[in-house]
Amino acid sequence: MQIAMMGLGRMGGNMVRRLMRAGHECVVYDIDPKNIAALVSEGATGASSMQELVEKLNKPRHIWLMLPAAITGGVVKQLAALMEPGDTIIDGGNSNYRDAVDLGAELSAKGINFVDVGTSGGVHGLERGYCLMIGGPDQSVRELDPVFAALAPGGDENASGTVQRGYLHCGPSGAGHYVKMVHNGIEYGMMAAYAEGFNILKAANSGKQEREADAETTPLAEPHYYQFDMDVAQVAQVWRHGSVITSWLLDLTADALADDPSLSQFGGRVSDSGEGRWTVKAAIDTGVPAPVLSSALYSRFSSQGHSTYGDKLLSAMRLAFGGHFEKKD
Amino acid sequence: MQIAMMGLGRMGGNMVRRLMRAGHECVVYDIDPKNIAALVSEGATGASSMQELVEKLNKPRHIWLMLPAAITGGVVKQLAALMEPGDTIIDGGNSNYRDAVDLGAELSAKGINFVDVGTSGGVHGLERGYCLMIGGPDQSVRELDPVFAALAPGGDENASGTVQRGYLHCGPSGAGHYVKMVHNGIEYGMMAAYAEGFNILKAANSGKQEREADAETTPLAEPHYYQFDMDVAQVAQVWRHGSVITSWLLDLTADALADDPSLSQFGGRVSDSGEGRWTVKAAIDTGVPAPVLSSALYSRFSSQGHSTYGDKLLSAMRLAFGGHFEKKD
Amino acid sequence: MQIAMMGLGRMGGNMVRRLMRAGHECVVYDIDPKNIAALVSEGATGASSMQELVEKLNKPRHIWLMLPAAITGGVVKQLAALMEPGDTIIDGGNSNYRDAVDLGAELSAKGINFVDVGTSGGVHGLERGYCLMIGGPDQSVRELDPVFAALAPGGDENASGTVQRGYLHCGPSGAGHYVKMVHNGIEYGMMAAYAEGFNILKAANSGKQEREADAETTPLAEPHYYQFDMDVAQVAQVWRHGSVITSWLLDLTADALADDPSLSQFGGRVSDSGEGRWTVKAAIDTGVPAPVLSSALYSRFSSQGHSTYGDKLLSAMRLAFGGHFEKKD
Amino acid sequence: MQIAMMGLGRMGGNMVRRLMRAGHECVVYDIDPKNIAALVSEGATGASSMQELVEKLNKPRHIWLMLPAAITGGVVKQLAALMEPGDTIIDGGNSNYRDAVDLGAELSAKGINFVDVGTSGGVHGLERGYCLMIGGPDQSVRELDPVFAALAPGGDENASGTVQRGYLHCGPSGAGHYVKMVHNGIEYGMMAAYAEGFNILKAANSGKQEREADAETTPLAEPHYYQFDMDVAQVAQVWRHGSVITSWLLDLTADALADDPSLSQFGGRVSDSGEGRWTVKAAIDTGVPAPVLSSALYSRFSSQGHSTYGDKLLSAMRLAFGGHFEKKD
Repeated sequence: MQIAMMGLGRMGGNMVRRLMRAGHECVVYDIDPKNIAALVSEGATGASSMQELVEKLNKPRHIWLMLPAAITGGVVKQLAALMEPGDTIIDGGNSNYRDAVDLGAELSAKGINFVDVGTSGGVHGLERGYCLMIGGPDQSVRELDPVFAALAPGGDENASGTVQRGYLHCGPSGAGHYVKMVHNGIEYGMMAAYAEGFNILKAANSGKQEREADAETTPLAEPHYYQFDMDVAQVAQVWRHGSVITSWLLDLTADALADDPSLSQFGGRVSDSGEGRWTVKAAIDTGVPAPVLSSALYSRFSSQGHSTYGDKLLSAMRLAFGGHFEKKD
Repeated sequence: MQIAMMGLGRMGGNMVRRLMRAGHECVVYDIDPKNIAALVSEGATGASSMQELVEKLNKPRHIWLMLPAAITGGVVKQLAALMEPGDTIIDGGNSNYRDAVDLGAELSAKGINFVDVGTSGGVHGLERGYCLMIGGPDQSVRELDPVFAALAPGGDENASGTVQRGYLHCGPSGAGHYVKMVHNGIEYGMMAAYAEGFNILKAANSGKQEREADAETTPLAEPHYYQFDMDVAQVAQVWRHGSVITSWLLDLTADALADDPSLSQFGGRVSDSGEGRWTVKAAIDTGVPAPVLSSALYSRFSSQGHSTYGDKLLSAMRLAFGGHFEKKD
Repeated sequence: MQIAMMGLGRMGGNMVRRLMRAGHECVVYDIDPKNIAALVSEGATGASSMQELVEKLNKPRHIWLMLPAAITGGVVKQLAALMEPGDTIIDGGNSNYRDAVDLGAELSAKGINFVDVGTSGGVHGLERGYCLMIGGPDQSVRELDPVFAALAPGGDENASGTVQRGYLHCGPSGAGHYVKMVHNGIEYGMMAAYAEGFNILKAANSGKQEREADAETTPLAEPHYYQFDMDVAQVAQVWRHGSVITSWLLDLTADALADDPSLSQFGGRVSDSGEGRWTVKAAIDTGVPAPVLSSALYSRFSSQGHSTYGDKLLSAMRLAFGGHFEKKD
Repeated sequence: MQIAMMGLGRMGGNMVRRLMRAGHECVVYDIDPKNIAALVSEGATGASSMQELVEKLNKPRHIWLMLPAAITGGVVKQLAALMEPGDTIIDGGNSNYRDAVDLGAELSAKGINFVDVGTSGGVHGLERGYCLMIGGPDQSVRELDPVFAALAPGGDENASGTVQRGYLHCGPSGAGHYVKMVHNGIEYGMMAAYAEGFNILKAANSGKQEREADAETTPLAEPHYYQFDMDVAQVAQVWRHGSVITSWLLDLTADALADDPSLSQFGGRVSDSGEGRWTVKAAIDTGVPAPVLSSALYSRFSSQGHSTYGDKLLSAMRLAFGGHFEKKD
């Protein structure tokens, strides 16, 4: 079927490629003409403006956006002004589900359908397929089935509902981004579980290290139990063979450690990108305990340097009650 | 090769089966004669006592134990008294790695080899193979290579070292159980990440629920953002298709939810079995932050009812400073 | 000076009493006439409606609200419609600071001043005084100085700014409730620190207890180190004498434990009342790690039963991969 | 009464002073003769060796040790060899309660009494008195009552048991250090609660700050709600006036912020000193959830740089699945 894509970055570009491979007709637009040209050379139809993008589409139109969350809302409104009742706008970016709830209601009043698609798969999606978590009106989701099925990694005959086709229609507008939000929250938790575990493995030789003997350094009570020089990269490999914790993230981790065992290219500043925060806020709103997901998020905040003021205050307290002078590195 | 197995429960029995399928000769012993008889009927050689088990083996002997952690140490010492220099005892159970460090040193003084094998795979290991994390003397590990390779799920040509054969020799005595310990710590963290995420999904309809309007219940500020009736089982299914959080645990979770979407057979009391605790204690000894793994562990403690005294104290404080009477369920 | 109080519950009633003791003239209103009558009998002037409350006041009027957060916003708007430029409405309740930011802007457009006062002190405030954290226009805060000083516990000559008078003008509208919000967040954290600590003390006799010896119960490795029957109530008392953790909360805890050492009147369901949630959400918005405050909040959620679904899922996973049947209590 | 003190550092020296002020006769020893001389000049009797210290004492002897935990055990054994049945050794340092359990049993076999005294109060103890948490045999504790009462800040007529005299006999050997251990665990939790809260206050102006607009920085959704420039030092002051979170730690914090509002003398590396670790390990052994105390401990580990390897691994994963390059500071 015909589908338009706006936003041809890392994600959007590859999605167009995957759609064209499946035989779909793609009309594409991006603020950077080079991104358009690249896909045109691969068979897409280019548009040089939003207006032209809309005009080049058969009705009912389907325009899929892969844009930064910060600008998605504005673009949806601009596009909606150019479109007609029965048309559909799809937001496949990492937007807050609340925006999808609001946009869905707003566009619905104009007869325009809004579909929010949580899209997971990252840079591997082109080959591996994308996990699609979809919210929006039934009619639009039905129309878009061929597109969703092409982007998804393949269905599952034994599954029920749309999962047979490899994707899930989760509910009304917002439901897709809600599920994607929680997906990313879980992702943070899983990543942190691995990171903490590998960090503990790495420290298994602590008993071999000379420790400073000062009042501000806790002695290691039983150093003979911490004499292991673990080959962390090999451990990651073996865990891929039959363990309970096999996963795609572990596969990637094992590969990364095989390539660069010392992780020397990284400094340890870990960004977070919105969904983790929204997940925890949703947990709090609904009264659900989320200590693991929150801890994973806070570790990232700390890695970004946002613990420092509090840490200084702790040092100030320790000096005040105990006369402990802060140890310098 | 010839290998003895002692402890023929869920794990030990299936490991014997997998070994026999690969052509190994298994001599088996268990305190329950029925368990011995069952494996004898499948081709194993039975022994009716530890003494007989030792006698039926060619030298150098290899005896693998799959016993509860609480009794493993004692049995190792009893067995060692019956064995000779050059023989090897393998502990494949969920023992504390510290016991392996100690036993390794103790047996080494008698010329007997001690090999600790962290064994992951659970009830699926028979078909899927077991992940083997091994500590102990090089000589024993080399001798046992055919056994390890048969138990493991298959090797990886692209890997290096013993992972080519599907298992990992992690280091000296204790290293295997240490890696298994951390594996289980990560397992707790991953499980909790999923559990929290699905719990948040389940609560996505909080805005539809009537809330009690009393001073002890926080109102939900924006109920219109929590109107989703998520089909949690379907979400688990779709996440298996191309998402970043695909994993074997997710596969099992999706299957469990497909079978029993309401999880009605469970009450929510989650046991913990030692490795999670030891992982966190190792993190603390070595000064490694482990907030995710710890949170996962504490959630289990709470599910077992161990928060109650502290919670009562919180209610007592709230009454004392604020006149808040505890809300009854 | 003359001041009106609307909302004569636990907090509002006692604040009127403390104000009258300091010689202030109080005009009072409540939806429950009995609450009005009680204070009239102690010297207050009663009003039988919002309208009458406004009419009985000299200009510029000052009306202080102590109402449930859920209705405060609506009442402020109703009152504002009855008042005139130069008048001031004070919200001393546990409202979200965001409402104060919004109301401050809205009322300011009409020339009416809005002052938000975070008020801590609970049922002891009548005698002990209230901690006042104030946001709003300078002019109103200055006008209200005698009222604030009377409610506060007494100033501090060595302090600077308004703390010399015992209260703090924290900034523009919303700043008072923001500071109060964080105050309560800290309160949750401190309370949880004590609760966890006392829970650990209580468990110091774990080594004396018979433990079930089943595969689902982790054995206690060194029971001889857990043989203490701690008198928790006495420990709370002695910590009041010179320890680093002396506090008013500890004083109250010690008294509560002295009165009811077994805490038998409590079941362990701990409510949370909004500020704790808002604090964590503010931490997340601003990227500040708040693991302690969040953990304290989540423990309350768990005590309210909101972990159960996730816990059932954990049991389902354990059954699926390990064949572990959930232990029944 | 006569009491010997060995270890005349920050704590031990001041305890001798407080004892002499109360009329007790102090015999003192330290490896640094200057520390002995200082106290001799204030009225103490000096000893130039352990042997001499023992010889200068009337029987039954009472020798109090204030030594680093790492050497206490060895010194106790050396001393015990010089002493006689009926004598008492007191360990007032920050030792692991497990050592006290073991030493108590060992010395008891020789007829020598071992008393462990958890001692809180820090550098302020000289004037404020020390909180004493005591484990050991009844007879020794009774003999030492005048010493304990002199060190304690004063008793409480309304209390029961030894708290009337200002100290607590908590139970047999080890009980004192166990209670002190938990005390410090709580201390970590309370300190972290304040530190997180003040950190959140400090960030209340996040909405005013220019944020980088890149894919690796989460935008602040509602900057108009984060426009407060909080005077954190003043907030600390006002919370001392009638709030629920008044405490001695808050008093010290407020003073520290008054002296150095920017905390410029600190870098944010927060040491931990053993008891926090032991508390969490005791919680884990006994199955008690301790998320707050653990989080407080882990924040310190992170401040010491021990998160870095795990953080690098997170960056490696993010690059692997999402093509996210780590943001440089």
